[in-house]
Amino acid sequence: MTRPVISPITRIARRADGTSASARMVPEETPIALSYAGTTHAVMMASPADLTDFALGFSLTEGIIAAPEEIDHIEVEDHGAGIDIQIRLKDKANTRFQARRRRLAGPVGCGLCGIESIEEAMRAVPSVADCALTVSAADIVQSILQLSKKQPLHAETGAVHAAGFYIPRQGIVMAREDVGRHNALDKLAGALAVAHIDGSLGAVAVTSRVSVEMVQKTAALGASVIIAVSAPTALAIRTAEDTGMTLVALVRGDDFDIFTHPTRITPGASQHVA
Amino acid sequence: MTRPVISPITRIARRADGTSASARMVPEETPIALSYAGTTHAVMMASPADLTDFALGFSLTEGIIAAPEEIDHIEVEDHGAGIDIQIRLKDKANTRFQARRRRLAGPVGCGLCGIESIEEAMRAVPSVADCALTVSAADIVQSILQLSKKQPLHAETGAVHAAGFYIPRQGIVMAREDVGRHNALDKLAGALAVAHIDGSLGAVAVTSRVSVEMVQKTAALGASVIIAVSAPTALAIRTAEDTGMTLVALVRGDDFDIFTHPTRITPGASQHVA
Repeated sequence: MTRPVISPITRIARRADGTSASARMVPEETPIALSYAGTTHAVMMASPADLTDFALGFSLTEGIIAAPEEIDHIEVEDHGAGIDIQIRLKDKANTRFQARRRRLAGPVGCGLCGIESIEEAMRAVPSVADCALTVSAADIVQSILQLSKKQPLHAETGAVHAAGFYIPRQGIVMAREDVGRHNALDKLAGALAVAHIDGSLGAVAVTSRVSVEMVQKTAALGASVIIAVSAPTALAIRTAEDTGMTLVALVRGDDFDIFTHPTRITPGASQHVA
Repeated sequence: MTRPVISPITRIARRADGTSASARMVPEETPIALSYAGTTHAVMMASPADLTDFALGFSLTEGIIAAPEEIDHIEVEDHGAGIDIQIRLKDKANTRFQARRRRLAGPVGCGLCGIESIEEAMRAVPSVADCALTVSAADIVQSILQLSKKQPLHAETGAVHAAGFYIPRQGIVMAREDVGRHNALDKLAGALAVAHIDGSLGAVAVTSRVSVEMVQKTAALGASVIIAVSAPTALAIRTAEDTGMTLVALVRGDDFDIFTHPTRITPGASQHVA
């Protein structure tokens, strides 16, 4: 069963020259449960597309698996009101996950206390400091320009985020869209894993603001550069600084701001594809 | 202990006329745990401000309490890496919450299955169909215009959402900002409760897109009109339709789109304050 990702609705448009009813496309938003070993780990409001990419990418960027091979089976179950993605992990990963679940259940079995929950949210991020990637100013400008042309859902609705993967001299090689910016990045991570594209080869480009979770997920993907249309938070900047990631944001046309590790940005000529 | 809500950072600005280092304000983002009876219910990445409003508003809009009086005590504990807000509920509310927690723990004590999690996410929304509020076109335009002037954090960072409460003939009477749009709305709900302002008296105005959760929280607050700068999702529109809420979005200057229940919008003269 395939669900629509965008739907037509009728709205009343009030404009200076009068009021009229007209059609508009809006993005669908669906509760999507990610369940491991039969129990839900998280429910996200997401675009109902690229669901196996989502399951695989979320499992990777949240550290539930270390490699795609640790997943035995992904099954998408549509329940009407929402979608349940059942993920079965292989033995070793499953054992590790069950131990994590027991820890999340807390010492008295009713959940973590505040301090433990904060520690879980701020879990250690893998360092990308050794990644040898460099990008030019032209690469940065091109990554966002090319990403803007790979957003079919956004083109129709004006209300969807995108995450793309940019490799110098190749351009945006993969992009995913979602109503949620974190989901778009998870779907990208999954799509890259399916295509066997090494995250250290390129930069993550996103249409959104940069929260700490975007930096955590980009590092988990192995990418050392994140490029964003909108602004970062202070915590995202500190986390990128600590993990050795180059954070570029507020890309507007040819202008952009570099927030961390500028040495990865070469002054040299354009490396972009036409 | 008070934490900064925005912080200065140095970024390298690359512009057509050259590259230079300069200062910029960025929003802080802090893991904030909301703990009931000593156990964390949720951890949100949020702006570390208006924390008792946040705890109270979240408790109300998520249906954990039915009235502010059901909270016995709110204590904010700063742990450095994040903030834990400990909320103690009074007897009856605590009993109800513990029953809900047992249900969320699932039949075998390890959590809900996918279908149950989806049902929890799509919980019934209180109807606001009987609310007699009407707003004029001028009210709608004014609500967003006035809200834009009550965003001190956004004015400094360009990266923070706001939610405000607009009462016809009074204007925006209350506004809250946060890096997260849902948090801004929860903080507004808490601030309204503290001020004993009845949610049915006015409209919720937000700077963001409208997800289904924004509609759920607005209905829980008792407001029958939501006005947004950006676009709604299809599920937000369906939920607003079902719950009797007027959803106005894409407010740009004097133009806007009405997505549901247009009868609450009067054609008459402006009711706004100057």
